[in-house]
Amino acid sequence: MTSQQSLGQDASFQLQQIGIIHSCYRQKFGIPRQPGIVTAAETTLELLAPFNQENLVRGLEGFSHIWVHFIFHQTMDEGWRPTIRPPRLGGRQRMGVFATRSTHRPNPLGMSVVELQKITSGNGRLVLHLGAADLLDATPVIDIKPYLPYADAIADAKGGFAVLPTQMAEVKFTDQAMNQCLRYEQRTGRKLVQLIDQVLGQDPRPAYLRESSGRRHGTALWDLNVVWEHTDGYFLVRELEYLTAN
Amino acid sequence: MTSQQSLGQDASFQLQQIGIIHSCYRQKFGIPRQPGIVTAAETTLELLAPFNQENLVRGLEGFSHIWVHFIFHQTMDEGWRPTIRPPRLGGRQRMGVFATRSTHRPNPLGMSVVELQKITSGNGRLVLHLGAADLLDATPVIDIKPYLPYADAIADAKGGFAVLPTQMAEVKFTDQAMNQCLRYEQRTGRKLVQLIDQVLGQDPRPAYLRESSGRRHGTALWDLNVVWEHTDGYFLVRELEYLTAN
Repeated sequence: MTSQQSLGQDASFQLQQIGIIHSCYRQKFGIPRQPGIVTAAETTLELLAPFNQENLVRGLEGFSHIWVHFIFHQTMDEGWRPTIRPPRLGGRQRMGVFATRSTHRPNPLGMSVVELQKITSGNGRLVLHLGAADLLDATPVIDIKPYLPYADAIADAKGGFAVLPTQMAEVKFTDQAMNQCLRYEQRTGRKLVQLIDQVLGQDPRPAYLRESSGRRHGTALWDLNVVWEHTDGYFLVRELEYLTAN
Repeated sequence: MTSQQSLGQDASFQLQQIGIIHSCYRQKFGIPRQPGIVTAAETTLELLAPFNQENLVRGLEGFSHIWVHFIFHQTMDEGWRPTIRPPRLGGRQRMGVFATRSTHRPNPLGMSVVELQKITSGNGRLVLHLGAADLLDATPVIDIKPYLPYADAIADAKGGFAVLPTQMAEVKFTDQAMNQCLRYEQRTGRKLVQLIDQVLGQDPRPAYLRESSGRRHGTALWDLNVVWEHTDGYFLVRELEYLTAN
């Protein structure tokens, strides 16, 4: 094959970070599987120098959605695995890594299509304000592309496995947790109660933890650790802990 | 922002090639802007060792479409430009590079959604057979992901500029060119006449060359250089030249 001669089989490519994500999600554990449901999550994409020039995004505001290409930075040092048990299949079936969107890939590349709400600039900061997204805080962004419906939206594409309907679970708060939430909302203006309700309501537990009732879990949102347990068919938020800045 | 402290602004990432594209397109000039129309182009994606294990694509055959992530290898050494004149806008308007799918990007990352027709393996080769694609021969592939309609197909997304309807132009052949095509088809089994008709019919000329009637052009397809000109409102294929293997 002549085409193999021009590039060796060991070709590698150096990519540079062009932006960074700011979001409420501090760890993979809390990220919802259907981000569109979590309307209370505010996500921004900040372009970094020398890419923080308005010129580079000229015309982008005319698109309702964009592709964000990023690096799975939190898991990239863990390497990749040939097969994965996708959560959507209840963890019962193994699929090849290229048949999944797993974070543990040969190249730790992620992509998400997100709504572009507005672009703001000032004080040398160029910021894209995004709709509900499944992006971890501090995620390095390596590319932005417009979403082109005529090319990207294939309505009759067939997925390899069925989408499980999301039945939102009930989320309750202890008095202590609710008081902490309300004080936090007053101080920051963030819709914390709604966010917790939406994140826990989708059941963030990995498949292998679904059976363990009464066990305490922590989910990091913004600068908080939300302590909760699943008991008697609902989620109970017990308290909030403040995380120290990392 | 604490999130900026965890990764520096100069973070870079090393990606490795996992596969290679085999296609009829030898140069960017011949690549159709709406690849779905070119049904005569056969494209394959060959996974390279150590990624040529069937395990890694287990379950992928259940998806009708896949995302192919690749490197714009033919133009990557030319660097990037802050603004671009997209061909779709007739070359009259400048858009920021992140508002386009231009090949000249800060990171030379491309992505295409393509139909997955079948997967074959044998003699250590693991090959994905793709539908119509806009991929150059020898393109390095860095990731494969399933197309998930529930996440990726946003039918009501709004594009920043209108899609121009493709009016296929008429394509004629000189007797010499047609004889050469028919001999080539007999020898290789490739549908060359149909491919040339579909590729030229979309008008591969960049906007700045649209006015120059009667000028000779060459478009490389497989191991051929197709010599043609645009004259009196149609495309005329004059002859085929054989390219030497590179």
